[in-house]
Amino acid sequence: MRNNPYYGPEGHGPYEMIGIGDLDLEEGGRIPDCQLAVATHGKLNAAKDNAILVPTWYSGTSKIMEQVYIGDGRALDPSKYFIIVVNQIGNGLSTSPHNSTGALAGPGFPKVRIGDDVRAQHQLLTETYGLDRLALVVGGSMGAQQTYEWAVRYPEFVQRAAPIAGTAKFTEHDILLLDTLAEAITSDPGFRDGSYASPADVAAGLKRHAKGWTLCGWSDAFFRAGRHRAFGFETVRDFADNFMVGYFAPMDPNALLSMSWKAQNADVSRHTGGDLAAALGRIKAKTFVMPISHDVIFPVADCAAEQALISGSSLRPLVSIDGHLGLFGADPELLAQVDANLKELMETSVD
Amino acid sequence: MRNNPYYGPEGHGPYEMIGIGDLDLEEGGRIPDCQLAVATHGKLNAAKDNAILVPTWYSGTSKIMEQVYIGDGRALDPSKYFIIVVNQIGNGLSTSPHNSTGALAGPGFPKVRIGDDVRAQHQLLTETYGLDRLALVVGGSMGAQQTYEWAVRYPEFVQRAAPIAGTAKFTEHDILLLDTLAEAITSDPGFRDGSYASPADVAAGLKRHAKGWTLCGWSDAFFRAGRHRAFGFETVRDFADNFMVGYFAPMDPNALLSMSWKAQNADVSRHTGGDLAAALGRIKAKTFVMPISHDVIFPVADCAAEQALISGSSLRPLVSIDGHLGLFGADPELLAQVDANLKELMETSVD
Repeated sequence: MRNNPYYGPEGHGPYEMIGIGDLDLEEGGRIPDCQLAVATHGKLNAAKDNAILVPTWYSGTSKIMEQVYIGDGRALDPSKYFIIVVNQIGNGLSTSPHNSTGALAGPGFPKVRIGDDVRAQHQLLTETYGLDRLALVVGGSMGAQQTYEWAVRYPEFVQRAAPIAGTAKFTEHDILLLDTLAEAITSDPGFRDGSYASPADVAAGLKRHAKGWTLCGWSDAFFRAGRHRAFGFETVRDFADNFMVGYFAPMDPNALLSMSWKAQNADVSRHTGGDLAAALGRIKAKTFVMPISHDVIFPVADCAAEQALISGSSLRPLVSIDGHLGLFGADPELLAQVDANLKELMETSVD
Repeated sequence: MRNNPYYGPEGHGPYEMIGIGDLDLEEGGRIPDCQLAVATHGKLNAAKDNAILVPTWYSGTSKIMEQVYIGDGRALDPSKYFIIVVNQIGNGLSTSPHNSTGALAGPGFPKVRIGDDVRAQHQLLTETYGLDRLALVVGGSMGAQQTYEWAVRYPEFVQRAAPIAGTAKFTEHDILLLDTLAEAITSDPGFRDGSYASPADVAAGLKRHAKGWTLCGWSDAFFRAGRHRAFGFETVRDFADNFMVGYFAPMDPNALLSMSWKAQNADVSRHTGGDLAAALGRIKAKTFVMPISHDVIFPVADCAAEQALISGSSLRPLVSIDGHLGLFGADPELLAQVDANLKELMETSVD
């Protein structure tokens, strides 16, 4: 499985592979010579105070963040900021099951937590770029989980935080949801406990997983409005069987499962003995919490409950019937709202 | 598979098996000697104008309708009405895959439509009870589908209609949802294309199916409020693995799949060449449309769009965080709302 053609610079570049040495993991074990795939945009200024960190979401890479969120005139403007997009561990570009060797290859890949990613990123930022602060951390979904972890773990480092469509502590409802999506893959006899030869061997399971994502990723209002036809598909079944199944089909099942476990176990209250209020109370960043109105995975109510625990934060719901996968950027109105909020956040002084 | 101990009078009685002869099916084929399992409550009056029909939902039988909705002082009061609960074809009690023989047994069971059920019920009511009208048809979920079909197909017969948590035409979003729930079962190697020896052979698939139902049957607000703990389960995973898995485990997979296909293909506009407005325009029954506020399968918006097409109807949303499976009756406030609406509907004159 070292050669999965999906994961490479052709589809996801340019990015640079940067080694941070051995990474000891919170669940035990170690990733030797941990490699982070990093894409940067813009230039770090002399004061080193214009750096923005963008972590990635489940199944996503640095490429979609570049394509959808970064550009001249956008909130994430490379002419003003030094934007560092770090692919999460296990996403297929950074150190992951399919590109690991020996005992760590494939199903032997160790459990990685959000905290492991954030410590690895902290090491990257301090050692490679000499940073001691970030003007902003912004990410969606699992990127929001990493954003919260950053703001709680390194409160002095993070000046502003913008978690989009994600929570600091995964809900029980979502744990069950990811159980069912993972079991769609692992129940495929072709999965062979992770020892499949190719994602094609797990095609049926990946297809069921993709159909499940179709249901929870978008919203009923999205389908009621016929938004799937804007993607070129006459029926919801066609949209699922082609667009969504096609999206996931080439991905590595072990990578998806590694990220899924990581997402399920995201919980900043691990820093405070299970006290979520205490954990979120540590945040010093100016924080805009941005749920998406029709997100059924991270409903506004769940995000609002956490936002209420963050001093000086602001709840900024984004309105889009696209739901959670509004993150994909198909709704320009949603992107306009993201940009307006991020621009306002960046104009907020943080001394 | 003729002996599935789950389906019988011990757990679901009392009911009477009433044969309606051969039933020709809309999709082609025929059920010879079609048997309907029928439970009645109360007495038919001399004028034969106090009859209420209650069809059943997916996986449900006449028993839960009796336990949750029928009783002295309730809207469905056996001291006032003659209440006829008819188990839908394929639900395990009426003619179904596991109790059929020959070519129709198990996976050979033919496709049955909502319209087949309603024609069978019409024959039952006219021939067995000599009825030419119903004071009310009321049902939830697939029972609502049958209620709509009754009101469109036999507008003179149905004086009042109360579809609860269901639609007249299944949405595309829900078609995909039932695809994924069905595939949770059919993807189990033990399913053997429907030729399993026992539901226990399909336990893994039934378990995945049950977990999927946990997610879409209840609501995120239900779990956020910790309602699963009121059922005696500490975590959502425990609630799914025990309560929901236990509920579905003894059921016949072919029966569930028969009902699932039927639900997916429910569409009253088959009577009018695909024109839903024209179909719903045929309804003469005084109709209360009752979606459940937190139902993610039949959102209020979907039900309201249909209600707007029914002359003289009223939209009566039921407020409950239990979502679709509020139908199970665990929220007494929901049942109080159902009763208040049904009592008001029964007091409405209809000529």
